Amino acid sequence: MKREKLKIGLFGFGCVGQGLYSILQKTQGLDAGIVKICVKDRNKSRSIDSKYFTYDKNELLNHPDINVIVELIDDSQAAYEIDSTALKNGKSVISANKKMISEHLEELICLQKENKTSILYEAACCASIPLIRNFEEYYDNDLMQSFSGIINGTTNFILTQIFQKKKDFHEALGYAKLHGYAESNSSFDVEGYDSKFKLTILLKHAFGLSVKPEDIINIGIDRINNFDIEFAREKKCKIKLIARAQRLKSGGVAAFVLPEFIPRENELYLVDGVNNGIVTENYFADKNIFIGKGAGAFPTAAAVVSDLSALTYGYKYEYKKSHLQNNIFPDNDFFIDVYVRFKRNDGDVHLTHFELIHSKYDSKEYSYITGKINFQKLIQTGWINRKNVNVILMNNSIVT
Amino acid sequence: MKREKLKIGLFGFGCVGQGLYSILQKTQGLDAGIVKICVKDRNKSRSIDSKYFTYDKNELLNHPDINVIVELIDDSQAAYEIDSTALKNGKSVISANKKMISEHLEELICLQKENKTSILYEAACCASIPLIRNFEEYYDNDLMQSFSGIINGTTNFILTQIFQKKKDFHEALGYAKLHGYAESNSSFDVEGYDSKFKLTILLKHAFGLSVKPEDIINIGIDRINNFDIEFAREKKCKIKLIARAQRLKSGGVAAFVLPEFIPRENELYLVDGVNNGIVTENYFADKNIFIGKGAGAFPTAAAVVSDLSALTYGYKYEYKKSHLQNNIFPDNDFFIDVYVRFKRNDGDVHLTHFELIHSKYDSKEYSYITGKINFQKLIQTGWINRKNVNVILMNNSIVT
Repeated sequence: MKREKLKIGLFGFGCVGQGLYSILQKTQGLDAGIVKICVKDRNKSRSIDSKYFTYDKNELLNHPDINVIVELIDDSQAAYEIDSTALKNGKSVISANKKMISEHLEELICLQKENKTSILYEAACCASIPLIRNFEEYYDNDLMQSFSGIINGTTNFILTQIFQKKKDFHEALGYAKLHGYAESNSSFDVEGYDSKFKLTILLKHAFGLSVKPEDIINIGIDRINNFDIEFAREKKCKIKLIARAQRLKSGGVAAFVLPEFIPRENELYLVDGVNNGIVTENYFADKNIFIGKGAGAFPTAAAVVSDLSALTYGYKYEYKKSHLQNNIFPDNDFFIDVYVRFKRNDGDVHLTHFELIHSKYDSKEYSYITGKINFQKLIQTGWINRKNVNVILMNNSIVT
Repeated sequence: MKREKLKIGLFGFGCVGQGLYSILQKTQGLDAGIVKICVKDRNKSRSIDSKYFTYDKNELLNHPDINVIVELIDDSQAAYEIDSTALKNGKSVISANKKMISEHLEELICLQKENKTSILYEAACCASIPLIRNFEEYYDNDLMQSFSGIINGTTNFILTQIFQKKKDFHEALGYAKLHGYAESNSSFDVEGYDSKFKLTILLKHAFGLSVKPEDIINIGIDRINNFDIEFAREKKCKIKLIARAQRLKSGGVAAFVLPEFIPRENELYLVDGVNNGIVTENYFADKNIFIGKGAGAFPTAAAVVSDLSALTYGYKYEYKKSHLQNNIFPDNDFFIDVYVRFKRNDGDVHLTHFELIHSKYDSKEYSYITGKINFQKLIQTGWINRKNVNVILMNNSIVT
């Protein structure tokens, strides 16, 4: 098969951009070269020849030689403008911007189709782990039943500090910031938004489900206090932030981001540090588990390289499951077992919210209830949104 | 994209064939139907309508409606005849016969090319784990450095019995046979041949390396005795049968199948039972780990279904790495750390064979040496082939 030579216009030359530049120097197998790099900061000193750089996005977007735009910037609004213009100009696009893709997926799919071009974004979900490609190609049927896993490296790094190094949440967060594993504004990661954006994208490729990120519930790890950590330790569990999606008997799909207690025998128990891990459950094939570095300049850049390689063969996502299933929908009418921790005197958490109470505990300091609850009811309670109430999934499953 | 309707001629209706039949009943997304099934045994009662069955292979191979042959039989010579004829007749082929593919890979690639058709065999390597597709597509560059893992479910089941249930090798083997996890003639699995056949296939897709199975060293688990097991336990290790391949600085590739001591912190320590697990190490992207059921009727059939789905889009393996690298070769000139166990009075194992001795132990019952040895020297020793000498890799790596 004839492979197309790639002439790259690169947006952003931060960690991932520089990682990509390094890899392209190293790999012989890929006929791809960077033509021009568009950056924002005129004052930053650059590690490579200044002839590569421009500050004018149109120089790349209208460049007649450039046939692929690799967009590696943080600002999701700017990213959308760049990527959509590039597609309209007939250029292929590779992006790692999960927020932008998650929020504009349907528009991007339309633009790809209208302009007969291709937008790939493997690096946006779990960096080096080939999730999207496998969901799209290998699980190219209706036999995937669920997927769940750790899809955010920052929170996993923080939780690993908590459970291995016995730090509390704030110490662990501070340590992660100090070592470059958390942004100074960490809410995007620790409150579960990053996981939710990725989950939205994965839902499209796993089940053909189109859903807006604002319609998915995310509770992060910022509510976890020492009481919760002690509870987990007593049960010989760690806590991990898990994105979970499952097809229901109704034909709908359950999807949410919640912290979960992870016991020792769970496949994700040993997935620590900035590693990500995803478990798919499949009719007939049982479980498949994918583990790898979910963040970092080089793992992310390596995923970009794989997308570049696929572009040389004219590869595009076909969103095959969207064509398979016409009546798939998000469904919150299911049950989960949860641990809900709250303050006694602060209590609008009522036993009546639960379908079944497994245990309850009351003390001056904190109280908790563990029990089975309807998810729709849970998200309608006032307390789910209160930062001083924590909700952690038990038993790593949806009760059907 | 237009998808081709698949009309299947199925060879073999054992566990996997019946599994495939069940899955095809269940999945709505795949436009594929079985036209005819060729079986050998006329006396066996069949679970589905007798109109499906024939005993004449040509009825399938020359059937004008059948456009894909799914060959799921054990006899590798018969399988080769079926598959090569099918390709010559312009039909696509899906096979799960690792021995046949491993021994005839180059011929099959030629036949695929000459006849502009496609042969896929994901099910031949680790059943439900999408290894070949990922090696071929996602790692479609020269950035994979090594892969290693448990790629045989039977031996992993036996070793799990040994280390979890404290059985000795023969008890565990008997138990595996009793429960259908080992064939009555178990040498194919326990001596490491099955792993070697798979390794040969994976080498082609991972590195573009063509190598005959007879040129790869395999030591199985049949030599493992209670002394070895006790040694592993003392070191808080399990023993797993590992297929290992690594690119060397020479430009060559190291490849072998050996039992290895697996410590608790190793990614494969918890991969037990009939599960398989593969670790790839990649320049820049670090490690990726894939885990799943490596055997069984349904997991294997599920991989066949994924191949069927890929055929509807005209997918074929392109053996991209073979085009990348012209001068890749098998290379045995490297060092490994090994444990060699032998009988004192039976000893042609000499200290002089080793580059470096880490430890030695001598007793009336058994002796062992642990040390660094050149692999080329190791395979030239007389004792490597002796069933009463056991060789187990230490430190899960090639020493460079």
